[in-house]
Amino acid sequence: MADINSPLEIGVTTGPIRGSKKIHVGPYRVAMREIALEPSSGDAPVRVYDTSGPYTDPEALIDIQAGLPALRRPWQLARGDVEEYQPRDVKPEDNGQLGPDRSGGVPAFPAALRRPLRAKAGANLSQMHYARQGIITPEMEYVAVRENLGRERLAEYVRDGDSFGASIPDYVTPGFVRDEVARGRAIIPSNVNHPECEPMAIGRNFLVKINANIGNSAVASDVASEVDKMVWSIRWGADTVMDLSTGRNIHDTREWIIRNSPVPIGTVPIYQALEKVGGIAEELTWEIFRDTLIEQAEQGVDYFTIHAGVRLPYIPMTAKRMTGIVSRGGSIMAKWCLSHHKESFLYEHFDEITEICKAYDIAYSLGDGLRPGSIYDANDEAQFAELYTLGELTKRAWAQDVQVMIEGPGHVPMHKIKENMTKQLEACGEAPFYTLGPLVTDIAPGYDHITSGIGAAQIGWYGTAMLCYVTPKEHLGLPDRDDVKVGVVTYKLAAHAADLAKGHPAAQVRDDALSKARFEFRWRDQFNLSLDPQTAEQYHDQTLPAEGAKTAHFCSMCGPKFCSMKITQEVRDFAAKQNAGVETFVAAEEAEAGMEEMSRKYNEGGRELYIGAGDREHD
Amino acid sequence: MADINSPLEIGVTTGPIRGSKKIHVGPYRVAMREIALEPSSGDAPVRVYDTSGPYTDPEALIDIQAGLPALRRPWQLARGDVEEYQPRDVKPEDNGQLGPDRSGGVPAFPAALRRPLRAKAGANLSQMHYARQGIITPEMEYVAVRENLGRERLAEYVRDGDSFGASIPDYVTPGFVRDEVARGRAIIPSNVNHPECEPMAIGRNFLVKINANIGNSAVASDVASEVDKMVWSIRWGADTVMDLSTGRNIHDTREWIIRNSPVPIGTVPIYQALEKVGGIAEELTWEIFRDTLIEQAEQGVDYFTIHAGVRLPYIPMTAKRMTGIVSRGGSIMAKWCLSHHKESFLYEHFDEITEICKAYDIAYSLGDGLRPGSIYDANDEAQFAELYTLGELTKRAWAQDVQVMIEGPGHVPMHKIKENMTKQLEACGEAPFYTLGPLVTDIAPGYDHITSGIGAAQIGWYGTAMLCYVTPKEHLGLPDRDDVKVGVVTYKLAAHAADLAKGHPAAQVRDDALSKARFEFRWRDQFNLSLDPQTAEQYHDQTLPAEGAKTAHFCSMCGPKFCSMKITQEVRDFAAKQNAGVETFVAAEEAEAGMEEMSRKYNEGGRELYIGAGDREHD
Repeated sequence: MADINSPLEIGVTTGPIRGSKKIHVGPYRVAMREIALEPSSGDAPVRVYDTSGPYTDPEALIDIQAGLPALRRPWQLARGDVEEYQPRDVKPEDNGQLGPDRSGGVPAFPAALRRPLRAKAGANLSQMHYARQGIITPEMEYVAVRENLGRERLAEYVRDGDSFGASIPDYVTPGFVRDEVARGRAIIPSNVNHPECEPMAIGRNFLVKINANIGNSAVASDVASEVDKMVWSIRWGADTVMDLSTGRNIHDTREWIIRNSPVPIGTVPIYQALEKVGGIAEELTWEIFRDTLIEQAEQGVDYFTIHAGVRLPYIPMTAKRMTGIVSRGGSIMAKWCLSHHKESFLYEHFDEITEICKAYDIAYSLGDGLRPGSIYDANDEAQFAELYTLGELTKRAWAQDVQVMIEGPGHVPMHKIKENMTKQLEACGEAPFYTLGPLVTDIAPGYDHITSGIGAAQIGWYGTAMLCYVTPKEHLGLPDRDDVKVGVVTYKLAAHAADLAKGHPAAQVRDDALSKARFEFRWRDQFNLSLDPQTAEQYHDQTLPAEGAKTAHFCSMCGPKFCSMKITQEVRDFAAKQNAGVETFVAAEEAEAGMEEMSRKYNEGGRELYIGAGDREHD
Repeated sequence: MADINSPLEIGVTTGPIRGSKKIHVGPYRVAMREIALEPSSGDAPVRVYDTSGPYTDPEALIDIQAGLPALRRPWQLARGDVEEYQPRDVKPEDNGQLGPDRSGGVPAFPAALRRPLRAKAGANLSQMHYARQGIITPEMEYVAVRENLGRERLAEYVRDGDSFGASIPDYVTPGFVRDEVARGRAIIPSNVNHPECEPMAIGRNFLVKINANIGNSAVASDVASEVDKMVWSIRWGADTVMDLSTGRNIHDTREWIIRNSPVPIGTVPIYQALEKVGGIAEELTWEIFRDTLIEQAEQGVDYFTIHAGVRLPYIPMTAKRMTGIVSRGGSIMAKWCLSHHKESFLYEHFDEITEICKAYDIAYSLGDGLRPGSIYDANDEAQFAELYTLGELTKRAWAQDVQVMIEGPGHVPMHKIKENMTKQLEACGEAPFYTLGPLVTDIAPGYDHITSGIGAAQIGWYGTAMLCYVTPKEHLGLPDRDDVKVGVVTYKLAAHAADLAKGHPAAQVRDDALSKARFEFRWRDQFNLSLDPQTAEQYHDQTLPAEGAKTAHFCSMCGPKFCSMKITQEVRDFAAKQNAGVETFVAAEEAEAGMEEMSRKYNEGGRELYIGAGDREHD
């Protein structure tokens, strides 16, 4: 147990991702990452979406004890609808402590002294409310620039893809963002007390997003590791992070995370409420739950998972299931409903929760507490009964201009995935869908990032706006740092595959740049353009560690006597002769010149370098 | 370099997969694997498809120097249409040697002295030929039993799924296998000189199969490692293995592999032919190629990848591609065609190749030499021009009763996958499709088992009969043993996901057994039922190493005070009271009794065991 009086030492990974630099675009200084290519390519740098925050900016001063700068504070204050106030006191039970001495706890976040903001009486801070007033907020402006990153090259691309009825524009204007938020088809999670957050949108007409789950257990040193995991997960592409901490020190852990997070933070408040009643679900009350919401609202949680769709009459529908109720929040509420034989207090008090969301701009993530936990239980009566209730609650939240997304399964075989999306769109009026996977089979524990990545790519294509990652440890244990990275990269590639298939404008820019680098044997560009440059380079070096091999333009599967690139050159020359289309083959001649240069380097470097590697495809 | 005179030491992994035993079913002793469940479950053992051969049978005597028993030899001889004959001499160039002393080579396989078989004059050994004569061969009988393994429990299942027009029967009869082979919709690769092979079928109305690629490079010691990789890949589920060796010692490497392989072995004969002409594609001749086919036919190669669809007029179509021709075989043939400005000798001599296939029962795997190597190139003119030629060649092969499958891409975004399947079915008369992935994005080198697993699951669902695996090292380096396992397990889960989605009868038996074990906290059953029990247990033990934890019926995410299984019990009781449906709840009461027993064990084991793990799903 860490000494509560000594400063908490937290190390996080900083510095640019290899080959990349941080850039800031436009008056709102929207952060992006730019990957430079080798001069020989003749190609411009490739801009990619960047979730990593100031941690990858060598010019940013990172101080975990102080937290990130409050980017959005001036925008919030300028709107004139907020007030500072004295927050509720942090109580021992917020951290699961026995008394006010924080014994066994973790140090409080040092800079957490500021007074929170909330809406002035009668005001509504939600982005949806502004949007419906016709206001374009700086948050919306920021999102528009962020979503457009590849679109400057749109003129080069013919759009294709099948978006299943989505309305993805050629260009995202701030007005488009406003309209999408106004009609509930996108959300910008942005608690007024999380001004450190860089605005981002979740909606089927925007890039598909991914969420990473982290969460503390009861040991003090884990706070450091959870902050590190948060920074690590956004480095690889997590668009939002859920803090699913249980046990003790929940409040302090969350404070450290939020103050250092440039992405929206989500929670499941019932977890903390349950800790406050000693883990006994039937002792939960609306008052304890409400107080927990306020506590988290004041800290800056951007979205709440609320399992208000687990209604008393749906619970018996799960009796014949293979795996019952697998959602933790769902089973807590089922337990409560059964014990009291009463309707869920979340459902009963839903409009009061909405009042709180309004005062801070917290988005709902309406939880699917009855989601299937096995292929056997997929798409059953309980699941869809709850979904339609979530649709009803969506409309109630929208009546107060509060932002909503809807959580989805779970375990679903491929042929039942589409029905989930179709019903969700219908039941919930196109509120963004946010799914966990789904896992398309139950038989591969240890590989459930893959079983779920398959389902995630598909449902992302069909219209899911955000994919909740699954790590290799799912069902087996707690993910460590490596698992977090594998989970994030897997979901990033699934989300990108969905963007491609939806025909998201210019999503293919990065694929094309990487494929061109591959074809031209620009190994470093290939690594740098990949989702995980470290791993790509490491795998390459296991076969061919020499530095010279990274400029090799022959690969070992073909060997020095035989090269597919050379042949393609010949093909191009041949085609040029046949068709006499000169302009098409100028590029080919330029490539030839470049190839000769590489060939020279190759001969200088020693031909034996190239034996034994294999980047070419088999057969 | 190994001493050519010392015996080659080859170690392979043997012994049962944990929790499983080998069983042999029916008069043909069809090998299957049976996973026993804990007695507390009250459930029968689960039978699963088993590709691992005698290596997982503790009663089998494994001697790599002698090879496997010739299972199919009596069946072949009984048909009376074969003759033994004196094979061609093994020439130094078969192994890329400079002279007959095998300098720098590997030891020849010791038991390779037997005389090969071939068809008597005028006979045709292909399974398709027998099928078209109305004959049900032992191979077909074997396949029928093998494919039916889960179907004994079919009565418990309502079939669903969407098979996109496939005709999957409730039960596979030997007659059904015959009919499918007769009409070319399935193949049973079975070179008469590979009698060690356990018969298996590839076709859209059978379970989806997977292939693993292995391949030697020029170092002698690698022969041992390639045999080991073959045994290792079938242990985890590879249905066929392709030996893609290049460099020297190709002949001897292949002999070691085939003699020890219980699964069909495929090759790309042009690789070896190219070695015989010193790697210079333009020096290839039909005579050298033909001689290579005979060499491999006599050794027992079960299917040949032949890139006969790379026709001269299609080559210029690749000029405008991002990544040209990425198939090695395809670019060899393109080079040859361009150098000579002549039509491909594979296309010109196709019917002569078919004559060879007929005499040994070698199946065609018609290679997609013009497949796309990037998202940019997917579904282009060159790719589909070749596909329609493969359709034409299919019909020519079928005219001689020779078995055919068709290779497919490659790199294809999700929205373009379906078109590949649709066009293949149309062009090739439902000949089995055999695809590499496809990879659904180019941006994740190091994770291309996943980018391709997403595409593989989808195209398998749409109707692809066999999925060629991709390992994490794809595009970067040569896969090692760990990569082979990850590739196989990833493809196994993708193939199974496809079987589920197609509505393959009783495919869900294993998912259900695993989910039930998960729900009842039978950890060992959960590990044993998974595709990779080792990894599942290892991940579990990283959080909860204690042996007692494997019988724990609470998991740490909920902790001892709160248990989803308990709640489900209460739900079942509640529902029982409401509906008074007694029979539904007998199972529940039995489960309750079992739970009390586990609860007792839990209390004996010490409650602190259960803190810190996490098998439950988040939120």
